[in-house]
Amino acid sequence: MKKTKPANLLDLIAKKKNGIPLTLNEINSLVSDYTLGIIPDYQMASFLMAVYFRGMDDIEILDYTKALMNSGDVIKFSKMKYRPVDKHSTGGVGDKVSIPLAALVAACGAPVPMISGRGLGHTGGTLDKLESIPGFNVNLSMEEFKSLVVRYGLALGGQTSTLVPADKKIYALRDVTETVDSIPLIVGSILSKKLAEGAQSFVFDVKAGSGAFMKDEHQATVLAKALVSMTKQFKKKSVALVTDMSQPLGNTIGNSLEIIESIELLKGNGPDDTLELVVIMGAYMLLMSGVVKNRIEGERKIIKSIQDKTGLMKFGEIIKAQKGNPVVIDDYDLLPQAKYKKVLKASQSGYIEKIDALDVGLASVYLGAGRESLESIIDPAVGFWVHKKVGDKVTANTPIITICYNDKSKMEKALIDLKKAIIFSDKVIDSPQLIKSVIEDA
Amino acid sequence: MKKTKPANLLDLIAKKKNGIPLTLNEINSLVSDYTLGIIPDYQMASFLMAVYFRGMDDIEILDYTKALMNSGDVIKFSKMKYRPVDKHSTGGVGDKVSIPLAALVAACGAPVPMISGRGLGHTGGTLDKLESIPGFNVNLSMEEFKSLVVRYGLALGGQTSTLVPADKKIYALRDVTETVDSIPLIVGSILSKKLAEGAQSFVFDVKAGSGAFMKDEHQATVLAKALVSMTKQFKKKSVALVTDMSQPLGNTIGNSLEIIESIELLKGNGPDDTLELVVIMGAYMLLMSGVVKNRIEGERKIIKSIQDKTGLMKFGEIIKAQKGNPVVIDDYDLLPQAKYKKVLKASQSGYIEKIDALDVGLASVYLGAGRESLESIIDPAVGFWVHKKVGDKVTANTPIITICYNDKSKMEKALIDLKKAIIFSDKVIDSPQLIKSVIEDA
Repeated sequence: MKKTKPANLLDLIAKKKNGIPLTLNEINSLVSDYTLGIIPDYQMASFLMAVYFRGMDDIEILDYTKALMNSGDVIKFSKMKYRPVDKHSTGGVGDKVSIPLAALVAACGAPVPMISGRGLGHTGGTLDKLESIPGFNVNLSMEEFKSLVVRYGLALGGQTSTLVPADKKIYALRDVTETVDSIPLIVGSILSKKLAEGAQSFVFDVKAGSGAFMKDEHQATVLAKALVSMTKQFKKKSVALVTDMSQPLGNTIGNSLEIIESIELLKGNGPDDTLELVVIMGAYMLLMSGVVKNRIEGERKIIKSIQDKTGLMKFGEIIKAQKGNPVVIDDYDLLPQAKYKKVLKASQSGYIEKIDALDVGLASVYLGAGRESLESIIDPAVGFWVHKKVGDKVTANTPIITICYNDKSKMEKALIDLKKAIIFSDKVIDSPQLIKSVIEDA
Repeated sequence: MKKTKPANLLDLIAKKKNGIPLTLNEINSLVSDYTLGIIPDYQMASFLMAVYFRGMDDIEILDYTKALMNSGDVIKFSKMKYRPVDKHSTGGVGDKVSIPLAALVAACGAPVPMISGRGLGHTGGTLDKLESIPGFNVNLSMEEFKSLVVRYGLALGGQTSTLVPADKKIYALRDVTETVDSIPLIVGSILSKKLAEGAQSFVFDVKAGSGAFMKDEHQATVLAKALVSMTKQFKKKSVALVTDMSQPLGNTIGNSLEIIESIELLKGNGPDDTLELVVIMGAYMLLMSGVVKNRIEGERKIIKSIQDKTGLMKFGEIIKAQKGNPVVIDDYDLLPQAKYKKVLKASQSGYIEKIDALDVGLASVYLGAGRESLESIIDPAVGFWVHKKVGDKVTANTPIITICYNDKSKMEKALIDLKKAIIFSDKVIDSPQLIKSVIEDA
């Protein structure tokens, strides 16, 4: 390949600003020089804002994703019976799907190398939830991560410093320069991490609604399609679901509470919406892994591993393997407990028209369940039990949400947002469609 | 006025990104917080790139210009017989107009508080040119600057640290983030400086062509109109000229050489193009200052002060007042002299089709006459004498450019660009129109 002269960064910003696509060499030097600290933050910030306005074409996204991925280690698994699969959610409020899903899919035989993130702002994070289990260690070395997948068919880890360091640095900058909501940058960020962790196929859960990163269903669908088509470019399989995040998912928000709900789901007592997502995503993961021949067979298999408790056993197994106390499965008192409870009741009778996911998510941050900044310390015990969902009929004084709290002033701050979140109607309200669309690799 | 809560910077970036105009309070806090170092460079960079794409409306430009201006001292002159006037050029190659112009206008009685810049990249700077005069001091305190204007009707200074510090900091960032070429940002930068130096009316020389900051005449005209209409918002008068910068202006490029050419112009031996600009701009300045009743009278007055040498005397006076040696006016040997000369001759007979201003400007940087970065040290002695202009008829071996140099390897590097700059034609070539348009305050 012809070696071109080293790219000058100002020229690259100018090219992007003027809508001219960057070459492979240009993208590679941009990503590696920024990661090495040769390019200052202010130049990268200006470049990222230019990308926000000009976008990237498919070849640029491919090159950018590869450059991010190759900025650190890339995990490779030796040939296994079934292909490793993983799931990624763009994040929401009460979204604990990853936890029961990973256990069930692994119980069915598909290897699940799952790398998750922490909560930030109004959205929760899988790592924070897992860490509410006493002793549970999410800080796995690459070797530990790999050997857990080989031995248990499952590992639940966080991004290490050697995995996609370029994305880590670029994401931190995007977060403070209003350049997060750019489809090419999102695709590069999500996909580079997923590709680096060694999975061969992916289910993407792209949330849409007030509590999602993409408020708008159309934009969420654009992202979902971009993720699937770009994954194909890497010769990997994927399916993307666009799902509702206008109200919280399931009945709990908060770290301990979501672990309890995950375990309950594995025991067969999951809330309808969470269960529906777990079953359909699990089915797609089993199908892409090669465990089943079609989606219906996959759904049956997931449901069976709930009924026969093999998913629950797998979760206990991985808790133990990752140094957590597996007895939590039978004794929720081992999880951090909030000292006080406050019940928010219906102010009128009628139908619930709205439980705004963003407001509930922000309330959970005020309560201490979430993070305002990366440095915030969360309280794993606190959170909400959501007793009613949109479309439910209530009478005045029906309990809607129970707040589990440790600090009265924080509870009172959360309560203001919670009250704002709930809207009643005199008319019958349909519950929102949970799965808005499914984009399969064509 | 109602006090709104302090603006959150990420919200401001988001607003601009989404095309929503910023309020007065928002712009004020943005500019002052950045100047104070509260806002980091990377956030300002991302904001500036969003401005590049979204622009600013007239109210925003007005508020932004005011915020820049008020970030430091604003010079005010007590009432004088005529209104203080100044001229600003967007910069070019061989553009020494400011020097003879300031002397002539001041000689005619209009006060000229002139604050100029240094050369950067392929364009030269008035301060560098003046400093080639032995002893000449451009680093004037505000008090010195004011008292020179009051006493001599003229001061030729540089931007002090207390004058428009916000623009100084923002301009430095724009320069390294590809956010220079944004009309609202340019207008704010130019106008805030001009308003802060105490002048009441302005002539703007907006260059168009390869050696200009705005290559394109249409874009230059947009900028010229924006400058005039925004100046009017400040209740000041202005005229903007869009002038040719496709070839260098006059016959010299380089600091000492341009001082010689400026003095020659004041002695009545100026090159046609430079003289034409000096006469028309001088006339507008005298008109706006109140010295003359109309432009024709202004032109006559400027020409007369060339003929009667009052402009030359004024220049000698200000050289002496600013600690320079005024004898340079009669003895050019007192200026830094290059040791060697190399003559570039016509490679064929015919007409000169092009002497590309950008290429000549870049060649002057290689030679040492200009700056590659703010830290570069320039050689005041070196430069070019341009003997022929576009449209001139030449025979093979006619001298086109004489290179005055001190370092052979630098000369050879410059020669490569110079040769590239010149294109010959067999057909008759018209010389380019110097003054493309004049935009007067309607």
